[in-house]
Amino acid sequence: MLLEELKNYKIYLASKSPRRRELLKDMGIDFEILSTDVDESYDPQLPPAEVVKYLSRLKLSPVDFSQYPEKSIFIACDTIVVVDGHIIGKPADEQEAHEMIRALSGCTHTVYSGLTVATPAQVLTDYRATEVTFAELSEEEIAHYINVYKPYDKAGAYGVQEWIGYVGIKAIDGSFYNVMGLPTRLLWEMLKLLV
Amino acid sequence: MLLEELKNYKIYLASKSPRRRELLKDMGIDFEILSTDVDESYDPQLPPAEVVKYLSRLKLSPVDFSQYPEKSIFIACDTIVVVDGHIIGKPADEQEAHEMIRALSGCTHTVYSGLTVATPAQVLTDYRATEVTFAELSEEEIAHYINVYKPYDKAGAYGVQEWIGYVGIKAIDGSFYNVMGLPTRLLWEMLKLLV
Repeated sequence: MLLEELKNYKIYLASKSPRRRELLKDMGIDFEILSTDVDESYDPQLPPAEVVKYLSRLKLSPVDFSQYPEKSIFIACDTIVVVDGHIIGKPADEQEAHEMIRALSGCTHTVYSGLTVATPAQVLTDYRATEVTFAELSEEEIAHYINVYKPYDKAGAYGVQEWIGYVGIKAIDGSFYNVMGLPTRLLWEMLKLLV
Repeated sequence: MLLEELKNYKIYLASKSPRRRELLKDMGIDFEILSTDVDESYDPQLPPAEVVKYLSRLKLSPVDFSQYPEKSIFIACDTIVVVDGHIIGKPADEQEAHEMIRALSGCTHTVYSGLTVATPAQVLTDYRATEVTFAELSEEEIAHYINVYKPYDKAGAYGVQEWIGYVGIKAIDGSFYNVMGLPTRLLWEMLKLLV
């Protein structure tokens, strides 16, 4: 079974996101955090799927694979929210968080995650997209969520696994964990290809 | 905001499920557990949506509403898994758990939750259905999940919020929390109608 084979590898996650760390841990995978700082700017002409694939590869670009043993695995992921064809990132302040959630209220948007999984010998990149449909939210519901949960570290200013996800999301179509920030089934498939 | 109004009510959850208790708590709702024991048999001619609606109402049938103050709210929910037109419940033993997950592997099934929300004056019942698509699972993956997670208290022998949900589920279509056992957005809508 894959979990057994992975015990022969040293696994590195290049991510600052506590949700990604939690999900990888809950998949039963032991890992270390790899701190990579990159300039996350991208060509605005790229379609969303290409943006997240590019950014997930970029997060591993500072890693010098030649310095690591053969049985090393590197994982990086990037998640964006796309509404009406516009990519929205993390909110800069309270006002922007309000504007973002107002834009999502009563609509369907798409969450894209790009995933790069690499060994020193091979690099794989893929992505998943999930549609998320919000109910119409009241100003009071939006204010309550932002005040209590302070979603400033989240693309689109919301966490599907938080209060707003329970009371405000009507339906999703695709991978749920992709919306949380890590397409876990895709990761499992890609790890099977590598080990 | 609804959460403020709910503070004027005493809320009772008729459920033994730890997932339902956790979800209701994470919705920010204070409640007490109401222990109701009912014979959960139903007319096998009923379609799945009617089964879960019937069973969720049934779970409140032992409650004598006249004994409670006006500002009381009672919540009951029932979740079933339907694959190839057959309702599957909780597995009786390890072998049945294996058979259930094998039946779900590589297929799309539907999870139905019926929800009844009542005050002493009014009873509302509704349901939600979510489609869940599993990847092809290996015998080793199925055995690992059952041995480690012992899903004997779960309809269909799996928890979407557990290891098998991370590595084995490709996509869902509908409410995620419905699959966990409580359609949280539907509950929010029904509470708004009652208070």
